[in-house]
Amino acid sequence: MVEHEIIQSRQNTKIKLWRKLLTAKGRKQQGHFLIEGTHLVEEALKYAQRFVELLVTPEYLESSEWSLLAKYLPVNLRPVLVAADVLKSLSATETHQGVIAVLDLPKKIESWQPNGSKYLLLDSVQDPGNLGTMIRTADAAGFDGVLLGQGTVDVYNDKVLRATQGSIWHLEVISISLDKAYDALKAVAIPIYATALHQTAIEYQSITETSKAAIVMGNEGAGVAQKWIELADQAIYIPMPGQAESLNVAVAAGILMFKFAS
Amino acid sequence: MVEHEIIQSRQNTKIKLWRKLLTAKGRKQQGHFLIEGTHLVEEALKYAQRFVELLVTPEYLESSEWSLLAKYLPVNLRPVLVAADVLKSLSATETHQGVIAVLDLPKKIESWQPNGSKYLLLDSVQDPGNLGTMIRTADAAGFDGVLLGQGTVDVYNDKVLRATQGSIWHLEVISISLDKAYDALKAVAIPIYATALHQTAIEYQSITETSKAAIVMGNEGAGVAQKWIELADQAIYIPMPGQAESLNVAVAAGILMFKFAS
Repeated sequence: MVEHEIIQSRQNTKIKLWRKLLTAKGRKQQGHFLIEGTHLVEEALKYAQRFVELLVTPEYLESSEWSLLAKYLPVNLRPVLVAADVLKSLSATETHQGVIAVLDLPKKIESWQPNGSKYLLLDSVQDPGNLGTMIRTADAAGFDGVLLGQGTVDVYNDKVLRATQGSIWHLEVISISLDKAYDALKAVAIPIYATALHQTAIEYQSITETSKAAIVMGNEGAGVAQKWIELADQAIYIPMPGQAESLNVAVAAGILMFKFAS
Repeated sequence: MVEHEIIQSRQNTKIKLWRKLLTAKGRKQQGHFLIEGTHLVEEALKYAQRFVELLVTPEYLESSEWSLLAKYLPVNLRPVLVAADVLKSLSATETHQGVIAVLDLPKKIESWQPNGSKYLLLDSVQDPGNLGTMIRTADAAGFDGVLLGQGTVDVYNDKVLRATQGSIWHLEVISISLDKAYDALKAVAIPIYATALHQTAIEYQSITETSKAAIVMGNEGAGVAQKWIELADQAIYIPMPGQAESLNVAVAAGILMFKFAS
């Protein structure tokens, strides 16, 4: 079942091609992205099933991690053997653990309709760690999806994927214009709450109906753009009794989403 | 008021000494630490007043940021002029903004007593960003202090300081053994809540008395050590309706602290 040939050179044509997937440009050109490490690959095998290649070191095939993955492996996915130092050239971290997968990027969404009742909407979130953490938190809170508006950092960036801890495959995560997202949410009467600090915002605790919600979080520096605050059903804020001027966006998103989690 | 001599060499004796403050070892040896950027320096001037040196580029002295800082400057603190490329060698980031300060490390705490009613306790938190974000969130939530147990990452690490956004000077942040912290909190009947996933933990929402609390958060991988869970007054957890196995520690701390924020 396993190929016996081991890729030994960083100059191998396929390795050079896959290495380009470490950049947003390369991912867009090839329509693929990389994930690394046992946990992410395991979650992708369980939930995503869009594998193009599974790359492992010969040592990895002897490890207990491999036995963990092997039971989820589709029959037509034959692992490609890659020498450890060659695999390292495809890794964004110091420790690739011996396993990297090449996956298909999802297709562009032309139209979208909510299948669930709870969504997180992001307006120009820039930090990969913040984006990944918010996807992980949305999953934990039982949200149905995370909608990435224009200007949000590429979700297939390795830092984002690692911070999601695999949650990216547990719920709907799509890039969509916030115009379209607002229209689709309003059409099914899911209330849109935009985080804001201005006069018309209400304290988030005062919301009593928690069975459906779309929460809009904004850019780390600028917050949610005025346009999206005005088009939302309600501007909300988190009262802060202390002296800090603001909260980290992922922490604020966590506090708000868990308001609607039960 | 300003010295006219400009330090032009990275080999200058003082520059070489200060550069060692970029490491935990250097900070410990010299008893000083560095902060950079207008916002952190401004917060330190407003709240901390433990300045050893204030280093600025000649260009910075002409900027509007400087006018912002100048009004908080104590009369005996004379800025030292450093050429931009030399100052860069003391910076942990690509953009030092033109201002870096050398501050005194706080004295070791021999004994500690709570002056407030709400504390965050950390057991072996490893990620600088998580630590800094939790200090910022504790400040926002109106907590009185963050107590750093053994094994927690050095709070004077530049990544921690930047993530605090200056909140480190808005509340008490001290390194202390959790043994001593528990004793001191119990002596004044502040209930200690340790986050845990085991059988005896209760949902955090079920706590009704929110006027005082000590919340214990643990290591990113291992959680709070069993010992500290058992010695706490109550083990608590955040119910997660979704499929994620866990929350980021800073997000979880945010959800819990804001339970006690009002």
